[in-house]
Amino acid sequence: MQFWYMETRPNISSQSIREARERIDHMVHRTPVLHSSAINELAGCDLFFKCENFQKVGAFKARGAANAVLKLSKKDRENGVATHSSGNHAAALARAAQVAKIPAYIVMPSNAPEVKKQAVKGYGGIVIECEPNLQAREQGLKDVVKEFGAIFIPPYDHLDVIEGQATCALEIFDAGYSLDTLLTPVGGGGLLAGTALAASFYSPNTKVIGAEPEGADDARRSFVAGYRIPMEKPNTIADGLLTSLGEINFNIISNHVQDILTVSDAQIISAMRLIYERMKIVIEPSCAVPLAVVLKNKSLFEGQKVGIILSGGNVDLSKLPFKTRTFNSVSRNHSSGSYFVGL
Amino acid sequence: MQFWYMETRPNISSQSIREARERIDHMVHRTPVLHSSAINELAGCDLFFKCENFQKVGAFKARGAANAVLKLSKKDRENGVATHSSGNHAAALARAAQVAKIPAYIVMPSNAPEVKKQAVKGYGGIVIECEPNLQAREQGLKDVVKEFGAIFIPPYDHLDVIEGQATCALEIFDAGYSLDTLLTPVGGGGLLAGTALAASFYSPNTKVIGAEPEGADDARRSFVAGYRIPMEKPNTIADGLLTSLGEINFNIISNHVQDILTVSDAQIISAMRLIYERMKIVIEPSCAVPLAVVLKNKSLFEGQKVGIILSGGNVDLSKLPFKTRTFNSVSRNHSSGSYFVGL
Repeated sequence: MQFWYMETRPNISSQSIREARERIDHMVHRTPVLHSSAINELAGCDLFFKCENFQKVGAFKARGAANAVLKLSKKDRENGVATHSSGNHAAALARAAQVAKIPAYIVMPSNAPEVKKQAVKGYGGIVIECEPNLQAREQGLKDVVKEFGAIFIPPYDHLDVIEGQATCALEIFDAGYSLDTLLTPVGGGGLLAGTALAASFYSPNTKVIGAEPEGADDARRSFVAGYRIPMEKPNTIADGLLTSLGEINFNIISNHVQDILTVSDAQIISAMRLIYERMKIVIEPSCAVPLAVVLKNKSLFEGQKVGIILSGGNVDLSKLPFKTRTFNSVSRNHSSGSYFVGL
Repeated sequence: MQFWYMETRPNISSQSIREARERIDHMVHRTPVLHSSAINELAGCDLFFKCENFQKVGAFKARGAANAVLKLSKKDRENGVATHSSGNHAAALARAAQVAKIPAYIVMPSNAPEVKKQAVKGYGGIVIECEPNLQAREQGLKDVVKEFGAIFIPPYDHLDVIEGQATCALEIFDAGYSLDTLLTPVGGGGLLAGTALAASFYSPNTKVIGAEPEGADDARRSFVAGYRIPMEKPNTIADGLLTSLGEINFNIISNHVQDILTVSDAQIISAMRLIYERMKIVIEPSCAVPLAVVLKNKSLFEGQKVGIILSGGNVDLSKLPFKTRTFNSVSRNHSSGSYFVGL
């Protein structure tokens, strides 16, 4: 057992997550926890939403990237960092590098939207274009690492990144919530793995559950099978969750997560709308997956104290999936108010 | 002067606003104040956003309606309250009456959207339909008052309503912000008048400025002329600000407000987008008017501490005015994070 423990939590300890929180303190916000009595009523449980949509760069990814950059030795970091990504991790790494005053090389496919390249450049990142396929991206990354001596910081399959993401749940537990269950979305598994480790250290009675779109359910299938099954053709509105589960992530999740539950895109959109209308906050579709899971499985959570990590708020406002004004949605639209229960 | 003072602040005093805050405490949230370093950078000043979009019923109107209902004597209130409105005041009054366990009669034009009627009914309000013109609405209200003995609570031209709205600014000053300027949107003038009174009592060095759409600029024109000029054909995206300035409101505003500044609908939409993208919160267009005023008149506010009351968050999500994803807007979209500075 001790061996297994060592293997699944190497280098990450109760103490090291606390140290990570200290380390990244000047780079991230201690985000608020939001409460909505109207949504509680609908869900039949007491929900606590940790608002990482208010985080720097608009997503929890700021934590892991900051931790990974700051843990590099002075010598290691002097040639900069690199990754291949076009999502929140790219922006988060660029910003972490900017604060640390080192270069960040971000390999992006040549057909990536100009706006995403600009987001990275806005944080001082250096965009390296490559052919739009995985092989070219991986080769592009290798080339950058070789040419500049930059250190590769992957988006989730990395202990320092996972340790950084774990600081989010640490803040929840430090604020004194006695949660029965804590849910996060799962894509690559950085947030879920970090959250599960944090719960195992600080609140061992809290169950941790992953929430996943049906159209990108490799984590659920891997969790059930006991080995990693990569996602072939993911298809979901939750564009932050298209990636396949990482290896380190899978090992931690297998050992410390209670279950992984899935929901349809229609359920995700409905939960997303509820959060916009009742809580009056902007989130990206991936964020709505855990609430959709709770609403789909009410009996599982009945009467419980349930935490949900809202992972980010970077959404294309011109493409929100709210097509029609429905009878229900507008009577909902008069929020009964949400309030912040912790900072 | 003393006479003038009495006329413009009758019954409303430093003490009475505090008492109002106590009175409505079980009915409203103490809303948070939000801060965004990214928007500060763009605006060239230090902005503090008081988030009434997180208020009960999704708008500051909850305060005035609650105060007016609770100030009624037990005898006066037993036959219920009435108003003619289809906006946030209707929902706020219905809810205040529901909490006070008395009936609320809301006169609404027969062609009002079913969804708005449902919002009122959702709070237990009794919807009374009338022909869709002002005369019919006023007659409908008279009939209700006569038939049921209900007390008319107007949406803004009423001292108890103004006193209730003043509790919002009281919370800001009590939280210890030393604001140079405080801005609110102005429609009927309930929020602006209440805010101006609160500032005159609790923070006399804070200038209070009204923010108004060009397409509904009767408050600006009345303020300049020195007498009330009703709005004939208002036309603006800020649908909460279509009403003409009330009489009591005009008197208070004339005496305690520094200036009223206007902005175009394009400027309102641009400020609204900025708040969604950078602060990750949902607001209605009327809320964005004060930020638009600040961005249009940067030199006026340079280096100042500026408060803005975000008045509400009840917006039709299927009709958000964000048509295209622009280069700028998306690089903005990666928020540098917002944080809550007070609760």
